[in-house]
Amino acid sequence: MQTKFRTGTAHLFIPGPTNVPADVQRAMIVPMQDHRAPDFADLLGPVLDGLKPVFGTRGGRIALFPGSGTAAWEAAITNTLCPGDKVLMARHGQFSDLWAQMAQALGLRVEAIDVAWGAPCPVTEIARRLGADRMGEIRAVFVTHNETATGVTSDVAGVRHALDSCFHDALLFVDGVSSIGSIPFEMDAWGVDLAIAGSQKGLMCPAGLGILAASPRALDAMATSTMPRSFLDLRAMLGAHDAGSFCFTPPAQLLHGLRAALARLRAEGLDAVYARHHRLATGIRAGIGALGLQTVAEHPLFASDTVTAIRTPQDVDAREVIAIARDRYNTHFGAGLGPLAGRAFRIGHLGDLNEGMCLTALGIAELSLKAAGARVDLGAGLAAAQAVFAAQPLAPALSIAAE
Amino acid sequence: MQTKFRTGTAHLFIPGPTNVPADVQRAMIVPMQDHRAPDFADLLGPVLDGLKPVFGTRGGRIALFPGSGTAAWEAAITNTLCPGDKVLMARHGQFSDLWAQMAQALGLRVEAIDVAWGAPCPVTEIARRLGADRMGEIRAVFVTHNETATGVTSDVAGVRHALDSCFHDALLFVDGVSSIGSIPFEMDAWGVDLAIAGSQKGLMCPAGLGILAASPRALDAMATSTMPRSFLDLRAMLGAHDAGSFCFTPPAQLLHGLRAALARLRAEGLDAVYARHHRLATGIRAGIGALGLQTVAEHPLFASDTVTAIRTPQDVDAREVIAIARDRYNTHFGAGLGPLAGRAFRIGHLGDLNEGMCLTALGIAELSLKAAGARVDLGAGLAAAQAVFAAQPLAPALSIAAE
Amino acid sequence: MQTKFRTGTAHLFIPGPTNVPADVQRAMIVPMQDHRAPDFADLLGPVLDGLKPVFGTRGGRIALFPGSGTAAWEAAITNTLCPGDKVLMARHGQFSDLWAQMAQALGLRVEAIDVAWGAPCPVTEIARRLGADRMGEIRAVFVTHNETATGVTSDVAGVRHALDSCFHDALLFVDGVSSIGSIPFEMDAWGVDLAIAGSQKGLMCPAGLGILAASPRALDAMATSTMPRSFLDLRAMLGAHDAGSFCFTPPAQLLHGLRAALARLRAEGLDAVYARHHRLATGIRAGIGALGLQTVAEHPLFASDTVTAIRTPQDVDAREVIAIARDRYNTHFGAGLGPLAGRAFRIGHLGDLNEGMCLTALGIAELSLKAAGARVDLGAGLAAAQAVFAAQPLAPALSIAAE
Amino acid sequence: MQTKFRTGTAHLFIPGPTNVPADVQRAMIVPMQDHRAPDFADLLGPVLDGLKPVFGTRGGRIALFPGSGTAAWEAAITNTLCPGDKVLMARHGQFSDLWAQMAQALGLRVEAIDVAWGAPCPVTEIARRLGADRMGEIRAVFVTHNETATGVTSDVAGVRHALDSCFHDALLFVDGVSSIGSIPFEMDAWGVDLAIAGSQKGLMCPAGLGILAASPRALDAMATSTMPRSFLDLRAMLGAHDAGSFCFTPPAQLLHGLRAALARLRAEGLDAVYARHHRLATGIRAGIGALGLQTVAEHPLFASDTVTAIRTPQDVDAREVIAIARDRYNTHFGAGLGPLAGRAFRIGHLGDLNEGMCLTALGIAELSLKAAGARVDLGAGLAAAQAVFAAQPLAPALSIAAE
Repeated sequence: MQTKFRTGTAHLFIPGPTNVPADVQRAMIVPMQDHRAPDFADLLGPVLDGLKPVFGTRGGRIALFPGSGTAAWEAAITNTLCPGDKVLMARHGQFSDLWAQMAQALGLRVEAIDVAWGAPCPVTEIARRLGADRMGEIRAVFVTHNETATGVTSDVAGVRHALDSCFHDALLFVDGVSSIGSIPFEMDAWGVDLAIAGSQKGLMCPAGLGILAASPRALDAMATSTMPRSFLDLRAMLGAHDAGSFCFTPPAQLLHGLRAALARLRAEGLDAVYARHHRLATGIRAGIGALGLQTVAEHPLFASDTVTAIRTPQDVDAREVIAIARDRYNTHFGAGLGPLAGRAFRIGHLGDLNEGMCLTALGIAELSLKAAGARVDLGAGLAAAQAVFAAQPLAPALSIAAE
Repeated sequence: MQTKFRTGTAHLFIPGPTNVPADVQRAMIVPMQDHRAPDFADLLGPVLDGLKPVFGTRGGRIALFPGSGTAAWEAAITNTLCPGDKVLMARHGQFSDLWAQMAQALGLRVEAIDVAWGAPCPVTEIARRLGADRMGEIRAVFVTHNETATGVTSDVAGVRHALDSCFHDALLFVDGVSSIGSIPFEMDAWGVDLAIAGSQKGLMCPAGLGILAASPRALDAMATSTMPRSFLDLRAMLGAHDAGSFCFTPPAQLLHGLRAALARLRAEGLDAVYARHHRLATGIRAGIGALGLQTVAEHPLFASDTVTAIRTPQDVDAREVIAIARDRYNTHFGAGLGPLAGRAFRIGHLGDLNEGMCLTALGIAELSLKAAGARVDLGAGLAAAQAVFAAQPLAPALSIAAE
Repeated sequence: MQTKFRTGTAHLFIPGPTNVPADVQRAMIVPMQDHRAPDFADLLGPVLDGLKPVFGTRGGRIALFPGSGTAAWEAAITNTLCPGDKVLMARHGQFSDLWAQMAQALGLRVEAIDVAWGAPCPVTEIARRLGADRMGEIRAVFVTHNETATGVTSDVAGVRHALDSCFHDALLFVDGVSSIGSIPFEMDAWGVDLAIAGSQKGLMCPAGLGILAASPRALDAMATSTMPRSFLDLRAMLGAHDAGSFCFTPPAQLLHGLRAALARLRAEGLDAVYARHHRLATGIRAGIGALGLQTVAEHPLFASDTVTAIRTPQDVDAREVIAIARDRYNTHFGAGLGPLAGRAFRIGHLGDLNEGMCLTALGIAELSLKAAGARVDLGAGLAAAQAVFAAQPLAPALSIAAE
Repeated sequence: MQTKFRTGTAHLFIPGPTNVPADVQRAMIVPMQDHRAPDFADLLGPVLDGLKPVFGTRGGRIALFPGSGTAAWEAAITNTLCPGDKVLMARHGQFSDLWAQMAQALGLRVEAIDVAWGAPCPVTEIARRLGADRMGEIRAVFVTHNETATGVTSDVAGVRHALDSCFHDALLFVDGVSSIGSIPFEMDAWGVDLAIAGSQKGLMCPAGLGILAASPRALDAMATSTMPRSFLDLRAMLGAHDAGSFCFTPPAQLLHGLRAALARLRAEGLDAVYARHHRLATGIRAGIGALGLQTVAEHPLFASDTVTAIRTPQDVDAREVIAIARDRYNTHFGAGLGPLAGRAFRIGHLGDLNEGMCLTALGIAELSLKAAGARVDLGAGLAAAQAVFAAQPLAPALSIAAE
C-alpha cells in the first residue's frame, strides 16, 4: 500500500472532523470489549451523564446512535413525528437544505422559508408563520443553530420565544452539530425538544456517533409517532442505555474517546471553552477583515464562533485557494458548498484549538490567496489577529485526572 | 476517572467484536482528515474493491454505512422493498428473530418459519413455501447465514437452489455478519441479492461500519422501492462512493483499519483463512465433546466454524460460568441469549485467532465450568483440542506490505 | 517495507521484554515534550518515588539511565569502585557470567566462585571467602538475585547475613533485573547497596531504561571512586533528577509508561503481585513436572517465580522446540543460553500475566515438544497446571485512576 | 494521577526532541518481541543500512547504543582512544563545552580553543595547532558540526582539509546530533572517522538511541584503544549487529520508528529534506531580522538551518518570553543555555516541519516578546517569513510504502 504524505503537521481547519487531542486519541486505543458485560455501564453511564451539561439539560435524555449527526437528525424525526406532519424551517445554507430534503424523503410536509445564504434563521418570519398557523398544523420547527456552510449562528432562544408568544406547541428541533460543545447551548432554558450533535466537532472525537437529546415532551411524542423505524428506534436505545448498553454492537472506542473529551471540557470549564472559541473566532474575523475580504455571514452579529466562510475576490477561484493550501502547505480548509463552490472557502475554528493554530490558518490563507491571484498584503491579517490575541491572554494550564 | 483492570491479557472470546490485530489497531491511529478532499478516494476505493472478494462478488456493489450490521440490515430492506411486501424467513435464533422484528417494524409482512434454536434454516420448508407461492407474493427470502446465538451455519446455496427450482424471483437477503471473512461466502455463485456484514467480526476491526453488498437485481429494485429512507439511502451512498466519499462524515479511522485488515486477509489467502477457522473450530468442538458437553447446534454438519454455543449441565448456571471466567480469569465468553440465557455460553472463535488462544478458551472454560459445579475432567478438553491441532500444523509466517 | 505476520496474538513467553499492558502501551503514545521545562518534574518525580517501594527502599536513591539494565550494572560499578578493586561473586549462569566479564573489562579483580548452572549463589562459600578475607581486600560482593538463564533465585538476605557475621564492609551489589517488581525484593532489609533493574521485565515497559538504586553507603562511595565515567555518572544524574530532569535527553515516553505501570503495581498491591507470580509459576512447574521433564533449577526450593528453564529429553533439540512454537504457533519461548543452547528452553512468566496465558504457554510447549520428537502426553501438563489454578482463585478486578 | 493540559496542539520548537510524524508514532506502537529471534535481523538490518546515506557513508559501520547521543559520544572516545591522549577541540557553546568535559572525565588531555559563543569552529586556528603538533601528540580533533546552543554550523570539510594539509593523522570526531538528517553531512567525503547522532532530532523519533558511525580507520583504532569499556563496547555491538541483534535488550520500538522515519527521508529525498530545512530556516531568520532582533550566530554565513538562537533586547528577560509562550500559548521554545540564560531563546526548526508550523513559531514569538516588554511590531516578522515562503513553494505530496 502506498501512503501519501507531506512534511510537518497536517493543519486541519475544516469545520469537522476537528483535531483530536492527543489524550483523546490515546484513550481510544483500547482492546475490544464485551458490550454486554456488566462493566460496560461503567463506561457508558459517565458519557451519557457528562453530555448533559454540554447540551444544557438536566431533564432531557441522551441517546447515542452509531452513525453520525445525520443519523441523529433522522432519529429525531422518525421517533416523534408522523408521516404527513408539517414542519416549519428556514433554508439558509447547505445543511439546513439537506435537513429539509431529509424531512421530505421521510414523508413530512416541509414549509420552508428560503432566506439568503449568509442570513440566520429569520425569527420574525418564523413567528409570523407560527402565528398564522391557527389550526396547529405545524408539528415541529427545525432550527439549524449553526449553519456550517455559511458560518452563521441563529437565535434559538428567539424561536422559542416566538413559539411561546403564540402559545404554539410545535416541537422545537435544533441541529447543534457544529455548535454544541463550542458555543453556548441551553436546551432546557431554550425549550429545545430535540437537539442533535455528532462526536466529531466540538466533542473532539472522530466521527461515528450521532447524539440525540430529547426533552420530556419529545419522549412523550414517541408514543404517538407512527413513522417506521428500527435501527434508529429511540425507545429501544434508551432502554438499552438504561441497561448499560446498546441495542447492537456500538463503537466502544468512541465512548472511551468521548469520556476523555468530556473530561477535558469539564477541566477547562464550559464557560472558558465558549470564551476561548469566541476569542479565537474574533481573531480570525479580525484577520479576514484586515485582508479586505468579506465573510459569507452578512453581519458580525450572527457570525459563528466555530466556522468562518470567506468570500474570495471576484477573480479568484476559492477552489484554487484550497488546493494551494493543501498541496503546498499541508493545510486543509473547507470548501464552499453548493452555490458557494468556488466563491468561498471556510476556516473551521472549533474544538481543540489555540492561538498558534489560528495564526497558521490565517498565515497559510494569506499565502494561498496571494498565490491564487488575490491582492492581499502578506501579514496584514496575522497582525490583526495577533492584536486581538495580545489583548486577551489565555488562562494557564489545566489539570485533569485522565482515563 | 477510575479504570478497572485485571492482570494479563483480557482474553476475548465473544463472537464479536473480535480481537483487533496489532497492525490493524495501529493503522487506525490517524489524525483526522478531510473526507471531501480529493485524496480521500485513495483510501475508500481500495477498501470497497478489497471487500468484493471477501463477499465473493464481482458484479455486486458495496456500500459502507456508518452504524453497524443492523444499519446494513435496515438499508437492505428500505432500499429494495415496499411497505406491505411479504418476506419469508426462518426464526431459529436471537438474530434471525431480531431481523424478523425489524421487518415488521418497517412495515413488511413476515412469513416466519419457527424452527428449533439449534437447527439451521429449513431449506426444504423454504422450498415448499416458495413453491406454494403461486401469486408471487413473497418478495424476499431472508437467510441468516450464521446464527450467532446458536452457532449454526445455514445452507445459502440450498435456498438459492430452492428459489431457482420453482423459478421464484424473490430477492435473496443474507445476514453474513458473523460469517463473512471467516467462512466461505459466495455472493455471486449463490445468487445472493443483498449481503450484510459488519466491521467487527471476520473483518477484525472495531464496530462502527455496516457493510451492504447489492447485486444488480437489488440495485434495480431501488427504482421501485417506496420505503421512506434518508440516512440509509443506498443510491445516495453509492453515488457518494463513486465520487470517492460519503454522504456525510464517515468514521475514517475505520477505513484505515479495514484497509489493513483486508491486506491481512489477502496475505493469508481467503482459502487459508477459511481453513484456519475450520481447524480451530474443530479443535474447540473436539474439546467440548471430550468434556461430555453438548453444543446448541443439533448436528456437527451445521456447526458453525465461527462460534460455538455450549449447553451447560442441567444443574449448572451458564451465567455463573461466564462470571467466573470474567472475574477470576479475565476471560470473556458470550452469554446465552433469549431462551438460552443461563443454559448456554458461547465461545467466539473468529477473526484473528490461533491455536494458543483456543487453548486459553478451552482451559478457562474447563476451570470455570468446574468452579460452577460441572463435573468435568480438567485437561480433557484441552488434550482433545491439542490432538486436532497436532494433526494439522499451521502454515508459516506471512508477509505483508502494510499501511 | 514488508512486514511478516502470523495470525492471532503473538504469545510472548521470553523472560523479557514482557507483555506491555494495554494501558501502559497507551500511556506511552505521547507527543514529544521539553525535558527542560519546569513541568517535567511532575512526570519524573512520581516515577522516582513510585519505584522506591518496588525496590523495598526508603533511604536509597533511584537513578534512571537511558540504556538498559546493563547500563545500570556498569553505573553501579564505575560510580562506587576503583580500578583494581577485588569483587567476590558466583558464576552460575549466563548473566552472572556476563557481569563478571564486565567487572574484568572495567578493571576489577574478580574472585569468581564457579558453581553448576542450576545452583543458586553459594551463600556458605561466600561466607567462607568473606571470613577468609582478613585484609578486607574484597570491596564488593555481586549477587545475581534471579539468574535468568537458569531460572534460579538466590538468597540475598543470606549473603547479607554472611557479610554481617564476619563484620565485612564490602558493598553488596544485586542484579534484580528479572526479579524486581515480580518477586519480593527488600533493599533496605537486606542491606543491599546497589540494586539494578530494567524497565522491560517486572516493570512491564519496553526496554530503554536502566534503573539503579543506591544506598547511603553506596552514595558515600562515590566520593572515593576513581573509575572514569561520564555518560553514566551517578552524581550528575542524581543532581539532574533533583532538578526534575536528566543530564541529557531522556526517553520521556518510557517515563509515561513507567508511571502507568507503577500505578498498576500499586493498585494490585505488591504482595498480591508477588503472590500471583508465585501461583502462576507453581502452575507452570506443576505442568512441566507432569510432562516428566526436568527444570534446570536443581531444586524447587530455589526455582524462580519469574522464569523456568526446562531441559529437553536427551534426543530432542530445544532449538527445534522453540522454532516449532514460533513458526507454527506464533509463540515465543526463550532459548537455552551458553552451555544450555539446544538442551533447554525457557518460559518467562513475569510481568502482566494470568492463568489463561500460562495455559497457552504450557499447551504450545506440549505441542512443540511432541512435534520435535519428545514423548509427552498432550494435556498432561495443562491438567496439572489447571489443578494448581483451581485451588487458588484469582482476586477480583482492580481499580486504577490511570494516566 | 493528574495530567496537565492546555488546549490545542502543543507547539514544540525546541531543538529536540522534535515532532514525531504521525506515521512514525504509529510505527512504534508494537507488541514486545524477542530480540534474539531470527527475524529481528529483518528489522535491524534495514535500519542500519538506511542510516548510511543519512551519514553520507558507504564504507563506515553504524552502531546503535541504547541511551542517547551522549552515549554515542562516550562510545566514540572509549573505543578508539587511550587514557592520556591529547584531543584538540574548540569550545564555542554548551555542547562543545560538555564534550570537552566528558573528554576530561574520561582521562584525555584536552587542548581547547575557546572562541566566542556565536562563532563557528575556528578552522584556521585548528590548522595552526595541527601544523604546530610536530610530535603528533594530538590523537583526535573533535568538531561540533552544529552547536545547538548557539545555532552555529561549522565547516567540517575545512577541518578535514586542515588535517590533510599538514598530513596529520589524528582521528576526526564529529558531533552531528543536531545536524545529521537535516543538513548535508558527508562522512566519507569529509573524512570523518567518528560521527555521532541521536534518534530524536533530524531522525524524528523519540530519544533513546545514540548512533555512532565509524570509519575503517576508527575501527582499526579499536585494536589499540586501552580505555575501559563494557556497556558501550563498539566491537561487541558491531558483532551483535552482524548477528542481527544487540548485546543486550534494545528498545525495539525505536527501531520500528527509525525504520519509518528513514522511509520518510528516502521518499522526500535527502536533497529535498536539506532544501526544505534551508527554506524554512531562511524564513525564520528573515522574520527575526524584520523584528530588529539579533541572532547569537555572529554571521548569516554560519547560521544553522536547524536551530536559531535569538538574543532578546537588553531589558527583556528571555526566560519570561519562554514562560509566556509556554503558559499562555502552549508553545515551547528552547532556553538560552549557560551564559545565554535569560539573554536568548532558541527556535528549533528541524525534523518534520512545514511553513504553517514556522508561522506559529514566529507569531507566538512576537506575541511573547511583546508581552515580555520588547518593542516589536506584531506581524512584521511573520510578513517577512511569508515573503520568503511565497518565493519558494513547496513540492507536492510524497508517496511512501509504509511499515
